[in-house]
Amino acid sequence: MAGQCPACPHHLLPISLGLFQGALLLFFALFVTYDEPSAQAEDTNLVANQLYGIFPFFQDIQVMLVVGLGLLLTFLPRYGLSAVTHNFLLLNFSTQWALVLQGLLHHLQHGQVHLDLHNLLTSEFAAVTVLISVGAILGRTSPCQLLVVAACEVPIYLASEWAILTRLGVLDVGGTITIHVFSCYFGLGVSKALFGAARQPVHPNETPTPHSDFLSLLGTLILWVFWPSFVAILCQPGDAQHRAILNTLLAMSASAVTTVVASSLLERDGKLSPGHLQNGSLAGGVVIGAVADMAMPPVAALALGSLSAVACVLGFRFLTPLMARKLTLQDQCGIHNLHGLPGILGAMASAVAILVTSKDTS
Amino acid sequence: MAGQCPACPHHLLPISLGLFQGALLLFFALFVTYDEPSAQAEDTNLVANQLYGIFPFFQDIQVMLVVGLGLLLTFLPRYGLSAVTHNFLLLNFSTQWALVLQGLLHHLQHGQVHLDLHNLLTSEFAAVTVLISVGAILGRTSPCQLLVVAACEVPIYLASEWAILTRLGVLDVGGTITIHVFSCYFGLGVSKALFGAARQPVHPNETPTPHSDFLSLLGTLILWVFWPSFVAILCQPGDAQHRAILNTLLAMSASAVTTVVASSLLERDGKLSPGHLQNGSLAGGVVIGAVADMAMPPVAALALGSLSAVACVLGFRFLTPLMARKLTLQDQCGIHNLHGLPGILGAMASAVAILVTSKDTS
Amino acid sequence: MAGQCPACPHHLLPISLGLFQGALLLFFALFVTYDEPSAQAEDTNLVANQLYGIFPFFQDIQVMLVVGLGLLLTFLPRYGLSAVTHNFLLLNFSTQWALVLQGLLHHLQHGQVHLDLHNLLTSEFAAVTVLISVGAILGRTSPCQLLVVAACEVPIYLASEWAILTRLGVLDVGGTITIHVFSCYFGLGVSKALFGAARQPVHPNETPTPHSDFLSLLGTLILWVFWPSFVAILCQPGDAQHRAILNTLLAMSASAVTTVVASSLLERDGKLSPGHLQNGSLAGGVVIGAVADMAMPPVAALALGSLSAVACVLGFRFLTPLMARKLTLQDQCGIHNLHGLPGILGAMASAVAILVTSKDTS
Repeated sequence: MAGQCPACPHHLLPISLGLFQGALLLFFALFVTYDEPSAQAEDTNLVANQLYGIFPFFQDIQVMLVVGLGLLLTFLPRYGLSAVTHNFLLLNFSTQWALVLQGLLHHLQHGQVHLDLHNLLTSEFAAVTVLISVGAILGRTSPCQLLVVAACEVPIYLASEWAILTRLGVLDVGGTITIHVFSCYFGLGVSKALFGAARQPVHPNETPTPHSDFLSLLGTLILWVFWPSFVAILCQPGDAQHRAILNTLLAMSASAVTTVVASSLLERDGKLSPGHLQNGSLAGGVVIGAVADMAMPPVAALALGSLSAVACVLGFRFLTPLMARKLTLQDQCGIHNLHGLPGILGAMASAVAILVTSKDTS
Repeated sequence: MAGQCPACPHHLLPISLGLFQGALLLFFALFVTYDEPSAQAEDTNLVANQLYGIFPFFQDIQVMLVVGLGLLLTFLPRYGLSAVTHNFLLLNFSTQWALVLQGLLHHLQHGQVHLDLHNLLTSEFAAVTVLISVGAILGRTSPCQLLVVAACEVPIYLASEWAILTRLGVLDVGGTITIHVFSCYFGLGVSKALFGAARQPVHPNETPTPHSDFLSLLGTLILWVFWPSFVAILCQPGDAQHRAILNTLLAMSASAVTTVVASSLLERDGKLSPGHLQNGSLAGGVVIGAVADMAMPPVAALALGSLSAVACVLGFRFLTPLMARKLTLQDQCGIHNLHGLPGILGAMASAVAILVTSKDTS
Repeated sequence: MAGQCPACPHHLLPISLGLFQGALLLFFALFVTYDEPSAQAEDTNLVANQLYGIFPFFQDIQVMLVVGLGLLLTFLPRYGLSAVTHNFLLLNFSTQWALVLQGLLHHLQHGQVHLDLHNLLTSEFAAVTVLISVGAILGRTSPCQLLVVAACEVPIYLASEWAILTRLGVLDVGGTITIHVFSCYFGLGVSKALFGAARQPVHPNETPTPHSDFLSLLGTLILWVFWPSFVAILCQPGDAQHRAILNTLLAMSASAVTTVVASSLLERDGKLSPGHLQNGSLAGGVVIGAVADMAMPPVAALALGSLSAVACVLGFRFLTPLMARKLTLQDQCGIHNLHGLPGILGAMASAVAILVTSKDTS
């Protein structure tokens, strides 16, 4: 459970977390307000309609991060309770930390910070990168170490997101590059830095049982169901958002079926590996993020979903053991297969889509 | 796990599934596009509002089918992981197959197929019939056999749905007849065809434990919560949809309480049977589908919910053992009690409601 | 399972429940109708938009009560299935009973009762008080006793809610006082009345295991995610509702982090206690209900969330053992720590907020 940390002095975790909460309170007291209340009835209607347009998507994403991702990480038996607890704590800490950093940046430029659901959402997206990255070091780190990773990753993510979206002008509505690719390589770097030298043997707690695989698959299914909301929440309302939802549904359906095909063909006994299904079914959601709202034919979404599932299963089968052997790089949850490879595929698809579109219009 | 099939040659499953994915890609590449983007700002607002009206309902149904129904099938211990996996694979395969068949029919009549959330939803409804039917043969069939069942059932469902709704003009907003009654008798037919001759003894894996009953009950509760969305999603927005939601809530609440009454009275020790609760609580949702949006008094919804729960519990107590003994007909999940009997009750209620209404207006 | 009741005669439970269902049917047949259908197209649009504004919130609350609260109560191993079953039965019985009582009151004043989603929701809120109260006597009572508690508590709640909201004019959009404080002290009274004399030793079934703690934490997480819908559903659409959602999100995030801090500091081994996390994370939702839609700065929501988590953890650590020792008052789920202390804190915050606001405007 959270709190046990052999490396660091007793009570370091609660005291530093407590100080952080105090600083958060101080920052909010000094700089953060809500928007002024709408003066007119028309504005009130507008606020209500905007809220009804974003809030159900927001709740879906909350379910994904708190319940779905938490369950996905329970594939190590005896570590389930800790995995869910750490995921929950990291989500809250990182979101608050991102709120402070985003608020500070905004304050330096514009003065008072006006909090709304959109700010909270972008802070939560920053927290998602932490939750993905720590998948590489699941079960090997104390809560203190996890909080240090979160404290470092959030500002680097905010800088990288600003560079990619604002400076380079990359379109990435579903966070394929800014969230998935970034957090994958950040997490692998952390794993290499912490455990690179030591070749740890596989711990008996780290072999999934049918029950832990079942719980983890439940997490996958929850993520699979709500992924369209994650991709579509920041889209332009109307056609683009409708298309993003459809593309995500098609890509995820294709990756689910293709995962079964690829895993059954690759495994020696012809059986589907639970680990492949838990991750491969979600690869379509990662790959589609960069292109979901673009004007492309539906077949492209299906093809990307299938390709990313194949990449993910091949990654688990060949690349992860290779990386562990050659690079002494442990990737406990296989984040490189779920977020890295499909993310790169999505980035390439985005480049192709933009080239094709600009050729069409020129 | 999916993939183990003693009867059929190695790799038959992944190869045929892979070929199917290829054919799907080809079909989409040739015939399927999205709607043209809306030209005007007004249209964009309309598209956005339509999306916000249907998407939360759609997500609820996805949770029901992927998480709720998957969990409901886990009452056989040691078979939980497979049950959830097969449910997920069948849902994806059948939805894709229904998309192809619906698209082909549309293509022959109108040329290019325009994909939207409504098409995906009706294809998913076709998949629901498969998921219900295979409940009769749960735990006795290989993934290959399940896919063959799905491949056969989807076209027959589409034809029967067309005949019932378009030719006969039956009103069935919640799929009581088209989905529940159809899939029940299709599933019983499949069970009879596959296992009719052999009287299989009960396998020890097939006796529920408290933990597997608990997981299955969780699935029931998820289905119970989201059922109103399933019934109301295709209703006329406004009063009819509001009434459909209320009628479904009343019917399901009545069937939950009545199940406890009926089961405790029938069981010898006066204890509530977990199997009865898992199914009886949902009977109200099945029965109400045919009449949910009709102008009937609220008491009718309560009465139908109670009646269907009684029918379901009586079915489990007397009819299922009788069918197994006299007809050598195995019904593993009791789909005849949950979908067959309440479905027939709903069809009768629909006929009565239409007779009463036409008498009132004449 | 439901039905086993050593104290009362065989079949008392199903027969009395069955009579209640019959009375419910009679009452609905005589007095309850739906609203007249909207005559004009504009009204239809209005009904549809109102429905889309309330229905996703309503579904979230259903998930909280049926799945989230059910799971939260499973921390006693071997009692999980019963806890979820009783929770489900009590929710349905109490909602129906509240519908009858509210309908009777309305009938005496206005004649015919028009049922809509809003009536169902307020009846469900009455049921919530029952579900909270029985947490004090979890695992020690038969279903018959639980139904008697529900039958008594619902009318007393309706009277107290009317007195607090209508007579005293207290603002309490999230039910902090009317639901949480009321049900806590009602539940403690029931526990004292039933088990006050006997000092029951701790039963071995009543010691949580890692798996039961895990399931209970899942329930906490589901409640945590959907709590903003619970607080905001009855708010004025527009700014007030937006603010209520944001305040709840902030308060719950603060209470999650603060619970980790407080629990790790208080426990001797520096480890986070699962029981503290299961309850403390939700304290922010209880405290914020009374003030969520008021015009207060965001920092107040954070501060209230942190304070309530500290109060909750201190309550578990010191007050619950003290109450058991000095007052022979058993509080199995610690409802006094989750609903009582944070509820009182919320009531005090509400008084302060109103004083400050009235000073500002005068």
